[in-house]
Order: sequence, then structure tokens, then C-alpha cells
Amino acid sequence: MIARTPEPPYFVAIFTSTRRAGDDGYGAMSERMVELARQQPGYLGMESVRTADGHGITLSYWENLESIQAWKRGAEHQEAQRLGRERWYGAYAVRIAKVERQSFFGVD
Amino acid sequence: MIARTPEPPYFVAIFTSTRRAGDDGYGAMSERMVELARQQPGYLGMESVRTADGHGITLSYWENLESIQAWKRGAEHQEAQRLGRERWYGAYAVRIAKVERQSFFGVD
Repeated sequence: MIARTPEPPYFVAIFTSTRRAGDDGYGAMSERMVELARQQPGYLGMESVRTADGHGITLSYWENLESIQAWKRGAEHQEAQRLGRERWYGAYAVRIAKVERQSFFGVD
Repeated sequence: MIARTPEPPYFVAIFTSTRRAGDDGYGAMSERMVELARQQPGYLGMESVRTADGHGITLSYWENLESIQAWKRGAEHQEAQRLGRERWYGAYAVRIAKVERQSFFGVD
């Protein structure tokens, strides 16, 4: 579950969200978005946690800002963002940040 | 659950972890660490999610690197870090990052 990211600097897209009730296509789209991210140039890893009552944080790690922008602008991702606002999320925040330091405990 | 952070730039401490089984004092210490963070100068907010099977991500937001360092170096926090490695966590990652952009949906 913990991503073995390379030495900083690199970038992180932080997605914090609350889900509305019901799946309504969310599960399938969520899996597809993970698959798409993994295929993107500059992708370094992902960490994601969601509780049963619908609070979630997803962290995706990237080599640079350009790779995040390219991922965000993809046609399928754009459609997922639209559906997210329309159907799946009650609220969300997206933050883009530059990782400057990291340390690990118990990670291979 | 979503923190209404101010305009970037500001900083985030990203704590991703997997818990070992059993509480063993974890719940009380976890609450105390949140309380301590809120009292620190430079604290801007926190978002935290943990699943029933022990995967967690906690994001704490800060005005600058100095406020993160002061929080990390506090005596109670140092003791919590030691106990965390000894008792509570199977593995964790800590990352310090500078937030450069943010956007919100459905957040008051």
C-alpha cells in the first residue's frame, strides 16, 4: 500500500473526497483511472484509502508537473471528472504539491 | 473532513501508514497528536482517513517548514514517533511537500 517513491524532488496530486451513497458506476471508473495513471509517462506510484462511510484520500506521485497535467487533460479522465461532480462526490479538494523530503519505516 | 486551506503556497506533511493489530494505546495517542497539532503555530488544518483493516493516510497542512519542524521535534511527538515504530505501525512513509495549487468542489 505504501509507494516506494524515488528520491525527492517529485510531485504529488492529493485528492481528498467524500462520496455520495450508491455505486452508480463509480467502482469501475475508479479502477479505470488507476489503470490509466499507471500507463502515463512520469507516473511514480499511488496510495489510496477510503472508509466504509465514504471518506477518501488518494495520493498519486509524478516526476513533474507536466505529467500531472497530461494525466488530468486526458479525455477519459476529463469525463470521469465531470461524472464525479455530477454523480459520485459530495465534495472534494485537489492539491498539487512538490515533495521535498521523505522517510520510510518498515518499507522494503 | 475536507480542510478549507488558504491560498497556496503552504506545506503539507503526508503520513501514510499500516497499523499492526490491537489498539495498545494508539487511539488515545492519536487523539492527543491531533490536539497538539492544532495548538502549534502555523497549523492550517488536517485530513485523515483510516480503513478498518489498518491502512491510513493523514495530511496536516502548515504555513511553512519551520512550523512542521517545531511540531515534529516536540517532546510528546518524539515519544509518539518512538512508540509508533515500536508498537503501532507495521510500516509508514512521511513526506513533506510544498502545495502549489488547489481547487475545491462542494466545500463551503
